[in-house]
Amino acid sequence: MEKIDEHKAFGGWQRRYTHKSEVCNCTMTFALYLPPLADTRRVPVVYWLSGLTCTDENFVNKAGAQRVAAELGIAIVAPDTSPRGDDVADEDSYDMGKGAGFYVNATEAPWASHYQMYDYVTSELPALLADEFGTTLDLSREAISGHSMGGHGALVVGLRNVDRFAAISAFSPICAPSEVPWGHKALPKYLGDNRDAWLEYDATAIMGRASNGESLPPILIEQGLDDGFYEEQLHPHRLEEAADQVGAQVEVRRREGYDHSYFFIASFMEDHLRFLAKHLGV
Amino acid sequence: MEKIDEHKAFGGWQRRYTHKSEVCNCTMTFALYLPPLADTRRVPVVYWLSGLTCTDENFVNKAGAQRVAAELGIAIVAPDTSPRGDDVADEDSYDMGKGAGFYVNATEAPWASHYQMYDYVTSELPALLADEFGTTLDLSREAISGHSMGGHGALVVGLRNVDRFAAISAFSPICAPSEVPWGHKALPKYLGDNRDAWLEYDATAIMGRASNGESLPPILIEQGLDDGFYEEQLHPHRLEEAADQVGAQVEVRRREGYDHSYFFIASFMEDHLRFLAKHLGV
Repeated sequence: MEKIDEHKAFGGWQRRYTHKSEVCNCTMTFALYLPPLADTRRVPVVYWLSGLTCTDENFVNKAGAQRVAAELGIAIVAPDTSPRGDDVADEDSYDMGKGAGFYVNATEAPWASHYQMYDYVTSELPALLADEFGTTLDLSREAISGHSMGGHGALVVGLRNVDRFAAISAFSPICAPSEVPWGHKALPKYLGDNRDAWLEYDATAIMGRASNGESLPPILIEQGLDDGFYEEQLHPHRLEEAADQVGAQVEVRRREGYDHSYFFIASFMEDHLRFLAKHLGV
Repeated sequence: MEKIDEHKAFGGWQRRYTHKSEVCNCTMTFALYLPPLADTRRVPVVYWLSGLTCTDENFVNKAGAQRVAAELGIAIVAPDTSPRGDDVADEDSYDMGKGAGFYVNATEAPWASHYQMYDYVTSELPALLADEFGTTLDLSREAISGHSMGGHGALVVGLRNVDRFAAISAFSPICAPSEVPWGHKALPKYLGDNRDAWLEYDATAIMGRASNGESLPPILIEQGLDDGFYEEQLHPHRLEEAADQVGAQVEVRRREGYDHSYFFIASFMEDHLRFLAKHLGV
């Protein structure tokens, strides 16, 4: 692992690292914000999963999260959104291939050899963090958030690992990818035509199969009503319906006038970090 | 004038406009943040001048200012850093030409026909704002801030218009451009070899000529001590010396570990907006 950038921010450190990923079979980059409290105590971890076209940098530059993370004493880990490199398969579109890993483990050629973002985010990256930052990060206290494709990722990762994540937050998430155009494009390519495989990465489907909704992590979703993707791609009502059926706790806050941008995310970032912090016992 | 972008942010609106500039003889772009209070009342204006290589967008995306501006009820106007367009003179370097207007009125060829950023910022843009937003912005209450080259701009604009600006803030400003390499490169090209012309755009020189330092706007400067440009280019001690001689109020806050980046700016943006707001009577 190599530190490639660092900036002091709100008394803590915004850093950027590269490392060789076994599961993605390429060099991966992630961002880490360490609050001032990490100098003297192990701090809980919030993962942030970004959306289509993003790298590890968009959130770090635009979300305004460091201020609140510094105050609360929370670290934030922001991975890249896909494998990278010249030998990594790609498509000439923004919603498939590089920048569009959808946080799945691909099973189909030519994607399977690198696109293993689910295992990267849930296993390899946390293990690396434990090895490298074991005295700084308290990896027994984890929560997860994300935006759009990364909101889908946060919901899926959190709902498939309910004993691990204290709470889940998402901004404008793709709540039912197997039912919308983004998913209809990416899921067959990454996972093949068997719809059952898609449902392993569909938060609404995972929620619908839950045997005990009350045991799931609490979920907070922020959704702008002037988001151009809201009607066609995001479908938070589908997750709400599934949550109602199983008795899970999902709050969707619909916001007049807000769109799909980081201006929307920044506007409500503090609320979401405080929500996650509360459930992390901060 | 044309609105080319808008996003709801912290209850207000982050907008972007283009217009034909007479003084710069090209199409110019600026950003405007309107706080929620602007819906019901005229709000004071803070100008933000950006640094080398920036456009109107860097501050808007990275500084995290909208949250505080929304709370305080302040509008923020962020112009571009130079004239733009295919017929605008340029050099193949980051610190001269496009993105590097230095907020001067150029007198030398080939720069003089477009590079009139001092007049643009002090006259044309405020007049446009008064015409277009007269019922929204209270242009009798102005303050100014900026970063690096834009910190220089904020100091010069504020100190040459002491009856207009309630207070001046600057992050990592070039405090004595006639004495440092950035100025030694840009000022002769824009203004010719007459050093007296440079001193019209040198905050330390302007401060040194003040007849009554106590009548100058209060100045707050933030400076990171790990800023790679600090020793060679910025020289806040020169402005402090001049301020001491004339009895002006300049506070320079030197911050351990902070660099020249927007992470530094974001870390102290709230302090600076509260400082400006206090002197704006907010």
